[in-house]
Amino acid sequence: MTVGAPHRVVVIGGGFGGLFALRVLRRAPVEVTVIDRTNHHLFQPLLYQVATGILSAGEIAPPIRDVVRHQPRTTVVLGAVTAIDLTARTVTAHQGDSAHTLPYDSLIVAAGSETSYFGHDHLSRWAPGMKSIDDALELRGRIFGAFEMAEAESDERRRGEWLTFAVVGGGPTGVEMAGQIVELSQRSLQRNFRNFDPRSTRVVLFDGGTSILPTFGPRLAAKTRRDLERLGIEVHLDTLVTDIDDRGVDVRFGDGSTRRFAARTKIWAAGVKASALGRTLAEQSGADLDRNGRVQVLPDCSLPDHPEVFVVGDLMVLDDLPGVAEVAMQSGAHAARVIVRRQAKGGEGPGQPLRYHDLGSMATIARFKGVAKIGRIEIAGFVGWVAWLVVHLTFLTGFKNRVSALGHWTVSFLGRSRSERTITEQQIVARLAIEAQGDAGRTL
Amino acid sequence: MTVGAPHRVVVIGGGFGGLFALRVLRRAPVEVTVIDRTNHHLFQPLLYQVATGILSAGEIAPPIRDVVRHQPRTTVVLGAVTAIDLTARTVTAHQGDSAHTLPYDSLIVAAGSETSYFGHDHLSRWAPGMKSIDDALELRGRIFGAFEMAEAESDERRRGEWLTFAVVGGGPTGVEMAGQIVELSQRSLQRNFRNFDPRSTRVVLFDGGTSILPTFGPRLAAKTRRDLERLGIEVHLDTLVTDIDDRGVDVRFGDGSTRRFAARTKIWAAGVKASALGRTLAEQSGADLDRNGRVQVLPDCSLPDHPEVFVVGDLMVLDDLPGVAEVAMQSGAHAARVIVRRQAKGGEGPGQPLRYHDLGSMATIARFKGVAKIGRIEIAGFVGWVAWLVVHLTFLTGFKNRVSALGHWTVSFLGRSRSERTITEQQIVARLAIEAQGDAGRTL
Repeated sequence: MTVGAPHRVVVIGGGFGGLFALRVLRRAPVEVTVIDRTNHHLFQPLLYQVATGILSAGEIAPPIRDVVRHQPRTTVVLGAVTAIDLTARTVTAHQGDSAHTLPYDSLIVAAGSETSYFGHDHLSRWAPGMKSIDDALELRGRIFGAFEMAEAESDERRRGEWLTFAVVGGGPTGVEMAGQIVELSQRSLQRNFRNFDPRSTRVVLFDGGTSILPTFGPRLAAKTRRDLERLGIEVHLDTLVTDIDDRGVDVRFGDGSTRRFAARTKIWAAGVKASALGRTLAEQSGADLDRNGRVQVLPDCSLPDHPEVFVVGDLMVLDDLPGVAEVAMQSGAHAARVIVRRQAKGGEGPGQPLRYHDLGSMATIARFKGVAKIGRIEIAGFVGWVAWLVVHLTFLTGFKNRVSALGHWTVSFLGRSRSERTITEQQIVARLAIEAQGDAGRTL
Repeated sequence: MTVGAPHRVVVIGGGFGGLFALRVLRRAPVEVTVIDRTNHHLFQPLLYQVATGILSAGEIAPPIRDVVRHQPRTTVVLGAVTAIDLTARTVTAHQGDSAHTLPYDSLIVAAGSETSYFGHDHLSRWAPGMKSIDDALELRGRIFGAFEMAEAESDERRRGEWLTFAVVGGGPTGVEMAGQIVELSQRSLQRNFRNFDPRSTRVVLFDGGTSILPTFGPRLAAKTRRDLERLGIEVHLDTLVTDIDDRGVDVRFGDGSTRRFAARTKIWAAGVKASALGRTLAEQSGADLDRNGRVQVLPDCSLPDHPEVFVVGDLMVLDDLPGVAEVAMQSGAHAARVIVRRQAKGGEGPGQPLRYHDLGSMATIARFKGVAKIGRIEIAGFVGWVAWLVVHLTFLTGFKNRVSALGHWTVSFLGRSRSERTITEQQIVARLAIEAQGDAGRTL
């Protein structure tokens, strides 16, 4: 029952939430604009495989334009959203100095989250997060660069610092990164060095809580911890990271004692905060913000008093749903469905409440070792790994042209291969600058 | 007839020359050290495919350490060679501020060549060369970024500038780059943009000579030129590029007239100069340098009065051999064979002269269009393309783990796919800075 000009839907963010919304809107009689800071969607669950040399960036980051190329009524805008005006119903996106203001009839905010250093942003210099392709390429250069520095170092103690990797955060990303660094040092780098055995690599994992992978429940968490320790990873729980610099990490344990861990390479997988757009939405609509900056929404994912504005995914608070890909996908698709139904039936009344179907959580620790929690079913070990593999392969192959990623995976899981180990000269120069002056910029 | 300490061979450079030398030295009773500025060998003939989004960096740049992992007597040093002392028989390599001096008994200098701007190095800012992974990733970001800028641009004339690509240099690299930019705009970017048709992309190719691909002979050169023009590429021969800035290229034609071409993206494939190590070798040995800085060697590839020092590949002048991969491979292997024979028989006399077997030249213009010159046989069109494909696939599969590159190729040649289109946020920011301030740094 559309009358006059077509209904304009603006989607902020091309992550899981945004992409699933776009998919639902595909055949609806609406004009869609999706805005993202980058040119690509990011298959974030596999970002750690880019950081550790298994997959190439392109294999997990298809251009958003290409994903929606068969949706002629969908326009992609590369830009950073700097303002939302709920009264005027406009979104302002910046590309460098030039601003574009887009009017909307319906808005889906799927702006996601970013790395949080809990107010200590200077730590980002020494411990990059794991949220973007830039992060992953930066870490890839640092990880493989650390082994290069170790080979060139003649002092045993200093070499040990280059061969120590500190991972902060015991969620899936931290656990998977720690596991992959062990895997690559034990298997992929075999016979690559003459001055040390890469199997002497040390990986230390810190977490502030009392358990790793808390969302997987105590049994799987304990099992995973044992698996990590069997791989040689030192797991320190109930541990607060108090500082990070070029040479190491300072921590305070639960008993109040402190200790310094010498480690040249640090990875921050400890926390996320919601996009800053949450605050502007809350201020204008009166919605509540939680302490991570996420916006409390109504059961249909819309803002109070703004049935035309939806907040989905990591930026949304609803029913204690976790900040995982599956929630983003389902809430993004749900918001789009509410819009489509309204278009078909007219009216702006509240939509159906989101009913979340928990498809479970999964993580892989190392080759042939995974954990999965699907409803009440808990799986660990080889079967958990197979479950993880099947689900991720299914998703990946859902993208067109992911054939080569499949090839990479097969080769890399069965063999020792890690073909994406390129360090740019820019990264080498930056690496050497750290050594010389204790100075590190972003180096990718 | 080795006596006492093992014979020490130092190889400078892990390109085709160095790698083929290492292969010959594999089973010889010598200690080998290979020094390179980067961590990877580079399969340079396919660099343009990284720059245009077909292959990932890892697929053409295997780590040198990994290539020689089964050669326990071969050590890889990541560093830049800053000095060679022919009297003391030492090589000095720098890693940042720290220097390492390595003694040698035999030396193979395979340091190759770098992009030459013929004394106008400021042009590198606006027109990156095509010699390294850094170059290719930089150009990839600029090429795909230009289409993003075109989509955001509302002024028709300015959009045209973003959709114009200028390639300087009509050798194989320039021809292949020009062809691939057309291919990607005609096929891969289909339906990706809403504000313009990517088929309106304009590619201009400049060369100072009277023919493109001069080494292929007049018949194939003329045929290739017709093929390029049929693809819509504007070919300007006998044309001198006099300046390049953020917005375009100034040229002077053979008849003395001048013209400016507005083009936001410029690629420099016009010239190479030999590594600066050529000069230090010439000064110390009295060998002649040609105008490109290459070193005249004796028939066995050694320096005059220094039978223990070999110069191979792009850095070598011998019998008018061209600066191509095949010459580097054969001369690198030859130098290593001379060393191995001496080790077996004793003595330091002159080695056998290099006998070069010309296996021909090949280039690919677009899908299903290639040219190949093998001895007196000249092939063009589909058969030329098949010849090119077979040779390059054979080389690529010679690397371990190149399976996925094969997969990428198959998909990309038969379909429209170009999966490696990731632009980093760092590149986007730099791209926008060009637009805003006419300022461009290296952005990868």
